[in-house]
Amino acid sequence: MSGGFEAVREIGRRIHLLTHINALLGWDQEVYMPDGAIAERAEQLSYIEGLVYDETTSKDLGSALRELGASEEAPRGKKGLGDIESAHVRILFNMYRKQTKLPKQLVMETAKETSIAQNKWVEARKKKDYKLFEPHLARLLELTAEKIEKLGWKEHPYDVLLDDFEPGATTATVTPVFARLREGLKDLVQQIGAAEQVDAGFVTRRYDRTKQEQFGRNVLEAIGYDFNRGRLDISAHPFTTTLGADDVRITTRYNENFFNTGIFGIIHEAGHALYELGFSDEIRGGILADGTSLGIHESQSRMWENMIGRGFSFWKRYYAKLQSLFPEPLQDISLEQFYRGINKVEPSFIRVEADEVTYNLHIILRFELELALITGELSPANLPDAWNSKFADFFGITPPNDAEGVLQDIHWSMGAYGYFPTYALGNLYSAQFFTAMKKAMPDIEEKIEAGTFTEILRWLREHIHASGSIYTAGEVCRNISGSDLDPGYFLKYIDKKFGAVYGLSGR
Amino acid sequence: MSGGFEAVREIGRRIHLLTHINALLGWDQEVYMPDGAIAERAEQLSYIEGLVYDETTSKDLGSALRELGASEEAPRGKKGLGDIESAHVRILFNMYRKQTKLPKQLVMETAKETSIAQNKWVEARKKKDYKLFEPHLARLLELTAEKIEKLGWKEHPYDVLLDDFEPGATTATVTPVFARLREGLKDLVQQIGAAEQVDAGFVTRRYDRTKQEQFGRNVLEAIGYDFNRGRLDISAHPFTTTLGADDVRITTRYNENFFNTGIFGIIHEAGHALYELGFSDEIRGGILADGTSLGIHESQSRMWENMIGRGFSFWKRYYAKLQSLFPEPLQDISLEQFYRGINKVEPSFIRVEADEVTYNLHIILRFELELALITGELSPANLPDAWNSKFADFFGITPPNDAEGVLQDIHWSMGAYGYFPTYALGNLYSAQFFTAMKKAMPDIEEKIEAGTFTEILRWLREHIHASGSIYTAGEVCRNISGSDLDPGYFLKYIDKKFGAVYGLSGR
Repeated sequence: MSGGFEAVREIGRRIHLLTHINALLGWDQEVYMPDGAIAERAEQLSYIEGLVYDETTSKDLGSALRELGASEEAPRGKKGLGDIESAHVRILFNMYRKQTKLPKQLVMETAKETSIAQNKWVEARKKKDYKLFEPHLARLLELTAEKIEKLGWKEHPYDVLLDDFEPGATTATVTPVFARLREGLKDLVQQIGAAEQVDAGFVTRRYDRTKQEQFGRNVLEAIGYDFNRGRLDISAHPFTTTLGADDVRITTRYNENFFNTGIFGIIHEAGHALYELGFSDEIRGGILADGTSLGIHESQSRMWENMIGRGFSFWKRYYAKLQSLFPEPLQDISLEQFYRGINKVEPSFIRVEADEVTYNLHIILRFELELALITGELSPANLPDAWNSKFADFFGITPPNDAEGVLQDIHWSMGAYGYFPTYALGNLYSAQFFTAMKKAMPDIEEKIEAGTFTEILRWLREHIHASGSIYTAGEVCRNISGSDLDPGYFLKYIDKKFGAVYGLSGR
Repeated sequence: MSGGFEAVREIGRRIHLLTHINALLGWDQEVYMPDGAIAERAEQLSYIEGLVYDETTSKDLGSALRELGASEEAPRGKKGLGDIESAHVRILFNMYRKQTKLPKQLVMETAKETSIAQNKWVEARKKKDYKLFEPHLARLLELTAEKIEKLGWKEHPYDVLLDDFEPGATTATVTPVFARLREGLKDLVQQIGAAEQVDAGFVTRRYDRTKQEQFGRNVLEAIGYDFNRGRLDISAHPFTTTLGADDVRITTRYNENFFNTGIFGIIHEAGHALYELGFSDEIRGGILADGTSLGIHESQSRMWENMIGRGFSFWKRYYAKLQSLFPEPLQDISLEQFYRGINKVEPSFIRVEADEVTYNLHIILRFELELALITGELSPANLPDAWNSKFADFFGITPPNDAEGVLQDIHWSMGAYGYFPTYALGNLYSAQFFTAMKKAMPDIEEKIEAGTFTEILRWLREHIHASGSIYTAGEVCRNISGSDLDPGYFLKYIDKKFGAVYGLSGR
């Protein structure tokens, strides 16, 4: 192997280490840091980010990448490189290309404006007043336009943004996928709306926090999350973070008056964590030991959360245990009632509380609005009206205020445009992967019902986790299923599942 | 101000930031990190230490220091620099001088051997077998001799080691101080041994852990530890660590069958933390925002722990509260009995469990053995015999095995020779400072009894905390008391306190 590759790998290793140190700074900030420490913590984070910037823009990296043949035309380097080598080139060239094209002035200005915009967003959401946030959104969109221009695009400016979160995805590939998904979903939502409704009243009874955690820890152990290589803590917003090859921590929050938040949050984050804990020794400690895209990452969290955790087989195994932990709220609820209740479908205003069926509509709505904002068809001033009218079109209801509408998500205040689509892509991938897994393991539901998840985890490791970022999301998908991303798998999955939950005919 | 100083200050600021990031990595490792994460955490720590090494050996630092006139002969730089400027030069020149004189090979070899020696020490202590540790101690002493030779010395080779922990202290200044202290202590210990003994049986009754913590938190709040700028957690060995200007955390451990461990551990660490939280805005965020020496640091922890926390006035205030929290173990114990019990003096084998009087003898013993090891008068092979015979001489008892004797402390396995004296220096400084404070605040005992610590903390901030490392330990001592360190203050303090506890005549 050439010295160029060794240099690239070593720089990747250092970036990877810095990313983990950054993750500890971030984890601590959300979980245990005293409030007063925030100012210096921001400096510490920015210092580490500065070191990452230095690494990703270094002359050493540039010349090593050139030696390996990397260029705009050959982002994976010259022909004949092995999978691991060309993956290093692909990822580090993409970082190098972006960082060296963006003027430091723009990066710093964006960091500053983002910080201001986030504060303003918090205030605006609290006051339910979009007008407070509007000028800051406008400014962030200007800076984003500048970024798009500096980085350059071929087919669509939005492609530049997608690439930050879902490398390989383009507006041209995502648009028809979402269009088909949207039609299928609207149809199903209508049928469910016309069917007899599910009673989910029990989910808002009282569930003791300590017992929720106890149950969550039992489930984590059962599905193969290793507490010797991770932790479960509490934070305002649940997340998973990787602090080391053997240190992937998850957080959740508990709502004593809403059952779903705690346990499904835990299983969701565990899905992310199992991915990060499953990288092979071959890529351990280097830049490839990372999820290959946010969509693939989300496929893992959603598969565990929804296809396994909200499945009937899972609760056939665990419902008696749950009932014994929570006799009061669950004594009069049968397994079937419980299963239908946790799978109730209902148009609602808040994305993060949405059911499996309507969830993707929330995403498509944001995707369409983002596209219009980026192309300039929609101005920030008209965003709330666009949101509300599209919402009424998609869901048949109109948000009562901006806090429950256009201001609900943090992403736009962080300048994270192009992020939302990955949530829906994750749902679609999860169904496509689960179908392949079921084909390879026809008795998968029996395994879940028996509470034995070893083979499921082994399959996921072999086909998705182990390779980390060696393959792109598209390659992972084709390797597993033999075809590109196809929303048909997801539509078939929800048609079947929710057709049964709601007793729809012909499904 | 010259550009040279701005460069020095900026490098100091970066080192300071890196030190805080390192502190988070260390804190997390001791408190919350999953076991499996240890291997990569070591890499992360070593990476950050590498960055600190790069900063402290940089050509930029060297030339900026030269511009300010720093040299072996003028370690504070040229005349006419202000206090803050010359303190920057003093500290960074010392770092630069040491790091550039030590060959990287020696530093790396020492790090490797230390890591091995620590593991061997753990094993040896467990097996109570010094022989397992001996060759590693011998190797570390060889490397230490090499370090001393590279760094160079004038009066005594041990001075090089003292300088790492107590800058300004020398073998020549410490030796007579300890000699006088030793005589005074032996005399007092003998008199106490001949007096009627104190019954401290109640301290080993059962004290619920949760209530210990509750009481500890109340005390922390009362004495002015701000939980908005810190935390209290649990770790195997109590420590205080600074993760930011507004983030100084303490840890403790609780022993349900030994009252003293938890609460006095908490007050001790709080004394360290209050120092680190009290730096003035003038030095905030820079290299001077640090304790000026370990001895001065220890003076703060020991003053709060012993002079305040183990004082009669303190328990006049808090004993009723303690009794109400622990009615079972304390119902039959009067305030006077309690006070005498927590101040029981008794020769014992383990330093960290020693009382205020015998504690310093443990230190002097180690100091004398270290001196002999460094000069070569004592060989590692003869260390256990030397330990045991000196122990018998000092305390009248002989350790039953190596684990309770020569193997009890971690320091020698870490290569930390020259560290132990700072513990005793801290005790001596604390009495000298407390005397000065009492002179300025004659009603200090009434304030403690009233539970109002504001003025005490204000005095400590003004005279010790605020200036951080601007002044050396010696300067701080002279500024406060008008004289150099004088063990007479401490001897007078313990004579009076323990004379009363034991009803000794003529004291």
